[in-house]
Amino acid sequence: MGSLAADETCGVQEQPDVEDSSRAVRAQWVLNTPEPPGAWRELKQTVFHRANKLRSSCSQKGVSKCVLSVLKNIFPILHWGRNYKATKFKNDLMAGLTLASLSIPQSIGYASLAKLDPQYGLYTSVVPPLVYSLMGSSREIAIGPVAVVSMLLSSLVQKVIDPVADPTAYRNFVITVTFFAGFFQAVFGLFRLGFLVDFLSHAAIVGFMAGAAIVIGLQQLKGLLGIDHFTNKTDVISVMQAVLRSLHHPWSPLNFVLGCSFLIFILAMRFVGRKNRKLFWVPALAPLISVVLSTLIVFVTRADKHGVKIIKHLEGGINPRSVKEIELNGPHVGEAAKIGLISAIIALTEAIAVGRSFASVRGYQLDGNKEMVAMGVMNIAGSLTSCYVATGSFSRTAVNFSAGCQTVVSNIVMAIAVLVALQILTTLLYFTPIAILASIILSALPGLIDFNEAYNIWKVDKLDFLSCIGAFFGVLFGSVEIGLLVAVTISFGKVILNAIRPSMEFLGQLPGTDIFCSTNQYPMAVKISGTLIIRIHSSYFCFANANFIRERIMRWVKEDSEEGEEEVNGNTKMRAQVLILDMSNLMNIDTSGIIALEELHKELVSRGIELAIANPCWNIIHKLKLAKFVDKIGGGSFFLTIGEAVNTCLGSKMVNLKI
Amino acid sequence: MGSLAADETCGVQEQPDVEDSSRAVRAQWVLNTPEPPGAWRELKQTVFHRANKLRSSCSQKGVSKCVLSVLKNIFPILHWGRNYKATKFKNDLMAGLTLASLSIPQSIGYASLAKLDPQYGLYTSVVPPLVYSLMGSSREIAIGPVAVVSMLLSSLVQKVIDPVADPTAYRNFVITVTFFAGFFQAVFGLFRLGFLVDFLSHAAIVGFMAGAAIVIGLQQLKGLLGIDHFTNKTDVISVMQAVLRSLHHPWSPLNFVLGCSFLIFILAMRFVGRKNRKLFWVPALAPLISVVLSTLIVFVTRADKHGVKIIKHLEGGINPRSVKEIELNGPHVGEAAKIGLISAIIALTEAIAVGRSFASVRGYQLDGNKEMVAMGVMNIAGSLTSCYVATGSFSRTAVNFSAGCQTVVSNIVMAIAVLVALQILTTLLYFTPIAILASIILSALPGLIDFNEAYNIWKVDKLDFLSCIGAFFGVLFGSVEIGLLVAVTISFGKVILNAIRPSMEFLGQLPGTDIFCSTNQYPMAVKISGTLIIRIHSSYFCFANANFIRERIMRWVKEDSEEGEEEVNGNTKMRAQVLILDMSNLMNIDTSGIIALEELHKELVSRGIELAIANPCWNIIHKLKLAKFVDKIGGGSFFLTIGEAVNTCLGSKMVNLKI
Repeated sequence: MGSLAADETCGVQEQPDVEDSSRAVRAQWVLNTPEPPGAWRELKQTVFHRANKLRSSCSQKGVSKCVLSVLKNIFPILHWGRNYKATKFKNDLMAGLTLASLSIPQSIGYASLAKLDPQYGLYTSVVPPLVYSLMGSSREIAIGPVAVVSMLLSSLVQKVIDPVADPTAYRNFVITVTFFAGFFQAVFGLFRLGFLVDFLSHAAIVGFMAGAAIVIGLQQLKGLLGIDHFTNKTDVISVMQAVLRSLHHPWSPLNFVLGCSFLIFILAMRFVGRKNRKLFWVPALAPLISVVLSTLIVFVTRADKHGVKIIKHLEGGINPRSVKEIELNGPHVGEAAKIGLISAIIALTEAIAVGRSFASVRGYQLDGNKEMVAMGVMNIAGSLTSCYVATGSFSRTAVNFSAGCQTVVSNIVMAIAVLVALQILTTLLYFTPIAILASIILSALPGLIDFNEAYNIWKVDKLDFLSCIGAFFGVLFGSVEIGLLVAVTISFGKVILNAIRPSMEFLGQLPGTDIFCSTNQYPMAVKISGTLIIRIHSSYFCFANANFIRERIMRWVKEDSEEGEEEVNGNTKMRAQVLILDMSNLMNIDTSGIIALEELHKELVSRGIELAIANPCWNIIHKLKLAKFVDKIGGGSFFLTIGEAVNTCLGSKMVNLKI
Repeated sequence: MGSLAADETCGVQEQPDVEDSSRAVRAQWVLNTPEPPGAWRELKQTVFHRANKLRSSCSQKGVSKCVLSVLKNIFPILHWGRNYKATKFKNDLMAGLTLASLSIPQSIGYASLAKLDPQYGLYTSVVPPLVYSLMGSSREIAIGPVAVVSMLLSSLVQKVIDPVADPTAYRNFVITVTFFAGFFQAVFGLFRLGFLVDFLSHAAIVGFMAGAAIVIGLQQLKGLLGIDHFTNKTDVISVMQAVLRSLHHPWSPLNFVLGCSFLIFILAMRFVGRKNRKLFWVPALAPLISVVLSTLIVFVTRADKHGVKIIKHLEGGINPRSVKEIELNGPHVGEAAKIGLISAIIALTEAIAVGRSFASVRGYQLDGNKEMVAMGVMNIAGSLTSCYVATGSFSRTAVNFSAGCQTVVSNIVMAIAVLVALQILTTLLYFTPIAILASIILSALPGLIDFNEAYNIWKVDKLDFLSCIGAFFGVLFGSVEIGLLVAVTISFGKVILNAIRPSMEFLGQLPGTDIFCSTNQYPMAVKISGTLIIRIHSSYFCFANANFIRERIMRWVKEDSEEGEEEVNGNTKMRAQVLILDMSNLMNIDTSGIIALEELHKELVSRGIELAIANPCWNIIHKLKLAKFVDKIGGGSFFLTIGEAVNTCLGSKMVNLKI
C-alpha cells in the first residue's frame, strides 16, 4: 500500500474512547491483511493474461465471431478496411507517391551504405511495407531501409565476411541476418518481451543516433571523394586516416563537385519546404530530381570517362525469391543470430519511437507487442524475397505525415510505385553518379542529430546525459557495438545505483495538519520532539542496501542522542525515545533486509529506543510475519499511519504531543 | 517526500473558505519546494563526510587532542586499553588458551587444504591476530586461516601454478595473492566501498557456504583414504570419479580407520559440549587431544610403515620474512590481483558476518569500513611475514565467545600460544597422521551448512531461495567462481526485475477516514466513483519501466471505460473522469520517464480524462519543472495529498463526493 501517513484525529478532537478503539481496529487491519498472491500466481497471470482474456471473450461470443475477432486482432486492416472511403484514398495516393519519390533514391543510397547492390534497397521498399500494411497498426509510419540499420549491418557483417572479396556470401549472410532479426522481433512481440527494447533509454538513443549519423556521414566521404581504398572500420580516427591517406593518391574532384552541388540543392529545397509548410513536397521531391538531373548530366557529358564513378549495373524486375540464401546451418549461424538480435532491437527501437510519437500527435495508442509481431513477420517475409532489415524511417514518416496520409494504404501505394520503378527505371539509372547517393544520405543525417534534446537532457538529468554522451562517444571512437554496450551499462548502472544507495529523509508534521512529510522538501514541516521519523526512499529493502540503510539510521540515532545531551539545558529538544520507520515506499523485502531490521531493532533496544513501523505494505507485512519479526517486536509496534504511531508511542511514554 | 495521502478535512467539516485557501497554500508548497541538492553536491557530501567531520571536530579541540583522537580512531586498543583490568585479563587468558588449542590443529589442517606446508597455517595464526587486536573493533572475533578461504585459494591458484610441480612458486603466488587481498580490503575500507561486500546477499552466502562445505568435505576424502593421485578440480563429479578411480588401486584402510575413529571422537565430544554448556572446553580441546593421541599411536606402532601417511617435515621457528616473495611484476600479476579481489570479498563477507552477529548479541555496533581497513592491514602485514589470507573464523569465534572472552586480548594470548607451539612442538608433530587433519577439517564443516536458515529463506522469499540454491549448485557442480557468479547474477537480476516490472495498485478510501490505501491490501477501502487512483510501486520512473507503466495505466483506463459503459444502467459506477497518480513512492525520474508521462497525459486528454498528480517528491517536481511538464499540464494539477486531488478535481467536475 503506501502514502497514508495521516489519521483522522484532526480539526476537532473526537471522543477518546471511540478514537482509541477505531485506532485499535485499524492496527488490526495492518496486521491481518489478506495474503498477497504468490510469485508463481503473479507470473501466471502476467503470461497468460491475454490467453485468459481471449478465452473469456470467446466463450461469450461463440466460435465464428471469435475467429473473426482473432483475425481482426492480427490483421487490423480487416477492421478499418470496411470503413475505408474514396476521400481517404485520394489523400493516401498523394502521400504514397510523394513517399515513393523520396524512397527510391534513399533506398538505393541506403543499399550502398549496407554494401549491397542498389536493387536490394528497392526490394526492401516493396515487400516489407506491403506486409506491414496488413498487420501494423500505425497509420503514419513509412516502412523501408533506414540509414542507421544499414550502417549497423554493414559494420557488423563485414567483420565476418568481406563484401568486396565475396559479395554473394556477404549478401546471403545479410539475408540470413534479416531472417533472424524478423524472428527475434516476432518472438519479442509474441512473448511480450517488449521491455527488451526499453533497455535503451531515451537519452542513450539520442546519443547513439547522433553518433551513428556522424559515422554514416564520414562513410559518405568515400562516395563523395570517389576514393577506391577505404577503411572497413567505422570509428572517426580510422576513417579520417583513410581519407588523409587517399588524398595522397590521385582522385577526381569532379565527384566532389557533383555531390556537393546537389547536396546544397537538396538542403536549399528543404529550407524552402520549412519556410512554407504548403511546399512540403519540394524537399520530398528534391532527391529524385537530383538523381534524374545528375544522371542526365553524366549521360550527356560522359563524365564517367573523366573519373566520375557511376552505379553502372542495376538489376530490374520484381523481388527474386531468396529462401535458399538463408543459411541456418552454416559456420556463421551463431554470428548471424547475434547480429540479427542487435539489428532487431535497434530497428524496433527506431520504429516504435517513430510510430509512437506520430500516434501520440494524432491521439491514438500503439500496442508495442503487436507492432513487434508485425515488424517481425514483415522482416521474415522480406528475408524470403531478397530484402534486408526494414523498419520505420523517421524522415520518410514525417514526409508521409505532412503529405496528409490517412492510413497505412500510403505504404501500399509507395510499394507499388517502387515496384513499377524496379520494372521500368532501372536501366535508366546506369549513369547515376555514386556521389549523388552520398549526398542523398548526407542530406538525411541532420534529422538524426538532436542538439535541443541533448541540451534538455543535460538540463533535466545529469546522469541521463552521461549515458547520452557515453553512447555518442562510444559509437564515434569505438564501434556501434561499443556505443550500445556503454549506453546499456550506464543506464543499468543508474538503476542499480538507485537501488544500492537509496536516500533517506527525516519527516516532520506540516503545521495545522496531520500530514507528515520530508523536512528538506517542506521546510515548514516541524520535527516532533522525542521521535525520529525516517522514511527510506527505496522500493526494495534488500541485500544491496540493507546494511547501508541500517548503518545510516544508527548514525542518525547516535547524532540525535549526542545533540540531545548537549542541548538539554536549553530545553529545546528532547532525546528521541521512539524511532518511527515509515515503510510506505518499501514494496518488497528479502531475507537480508529482514536480518538488517532485526539487527536495527536489537541496537535500538540496547539504546532504550522503541521501534515503530508505519504503513508496511502487503508483501512486507506478510514476509515479516513469516520470518517471525512481527512476533519479536510485537504486533503493537505496527501502525497504519505515522500520526497513529506518534500518538500511541509518545502517549505510552507520557509525553505531551502538542506542538 | 512521500506518504501523506490524507488531508485534514475529516471528522467535523471546517469552514469552506478557510479550507479552500489553506488547500491553495499547500498546493503552492508542492510547486515551490526549495531546489534539491545537485548530483555533484550529494556525491561530495558522501565522499568527504568523514573528512569534514574530522576537520570540524579538530578545530574545536586543538591539534594535540585531535591527533590523539585520530590515533584512537585508528587503534581502538588505545581507547579501551586504559580501562583494561586484571579480572578481564583472567577471562581473556582462559579464552585465548582454549582458542589456541583449537587453532593449532585447525591451522595445520587448513594449510593442507590450501596446499601449503603445515607451518604456514600456524604462521597465519600469529601475525594477523596480533595486528587485528591493535586495529579491530570486534571483541569476540577469532582471526586466523578459515576453511572456505583456504579452499578458495587452492582451487583458484592451482589453475595458474601447480602446487605439486613447483611448490615454491605456488607459495610465492599465494603470498602475492594475500598481499593483493589485504590491499583491496584496505582500499574498500578507506574509500567506503563496503557495499561491494553486500553484493553477496544473505541467501547467496548461505548457499555458497553449504556448497563450499560439501566441496571441502569431498576434498578430505584424499587424506581420509590416503589417495596419492587426486583431481585438482573441485566439483562433485570430478571428485567422485577420482575417488572411484583410486579405489581400483591399492590403498591402505588404516588411514580411513584412524581418521574415522577420531572424527567420531571429535563429534562425540561436541555432542557432550552441546548437552552441557559448562563443558564448552571439551569440544574445543578434542582436536588437540586427537592430534596428540594419534601421533602417539603412530609413533608407538610405527604405523607409517604400514601405509599411514604422516606429516613428516614441519619447520619450526617464528614467521620468516616474505617481502621478496611478493611478485608485483611477474607474468601472473593480473591473475594474482583477480584472485586477491575474490578472496578479499569472501574473507570480508565471512569476517563481517561473524563480527556483526556477535556484536549484536553483546549489544554494540561494528563500523564496517573500519573493520575492512583493519582486515586489510592485517593481511598486508601477513603477506610480509609468510602468512596467507586470514579472516574471522565462525567456529573459533563461537568457542572464543563461549570461553568468556572480554576483549580482543584473547587473540593476543592465542597468537603467543601458537608462537610458542611453533618454537617447541613442531618436531613432535612429525608422526601426526594426515588423516587426522582431514577429520579435524571434516568436523568443522557441519557448522557451515545451515538447513534451518535455508528453510526459512524458502518460506519467506522464493526468489531469495533461488539465489541460495543457485550458489549451492554452482559451487557443487561448477566451481567456486561459477557459484559466486550465479549468486551475484541472480541477486542483481532480482533488483533489476524489481525495477523494470513494478507493481501498481488501485487506491481506495478507508471508510470513516481520509486515508487512501491499496484496495487489494485493505478490502474495506472503497474506490471513489468517477476517479481512478493509481499508485506506482517503484522508486525510479525510468527508461526500464516507463513504457510498462504507461501501457498498464492506459489498459486500466480502457477497461474502466468499457466497464463503465456496461454498468451504467445499474447506476452503480461512473466512468472515470479523473486519473490521480499518487507519486508518493517515486523518488526519481529520468527523461524517458518524463516522455512517458507526457504521452500518458496526451492519451488521457484525447479520452477526455483529467490527469492529477498527488504528492510528487522533491527531485521529481524539480525535474518536471525543468522539462516544462508542469507548464504543459498546469500547476493546478499538482496536489499535496490524494484527498485534496479528489476533492478539487471532482468538485470542479460538479460531482458529489459523498461515499
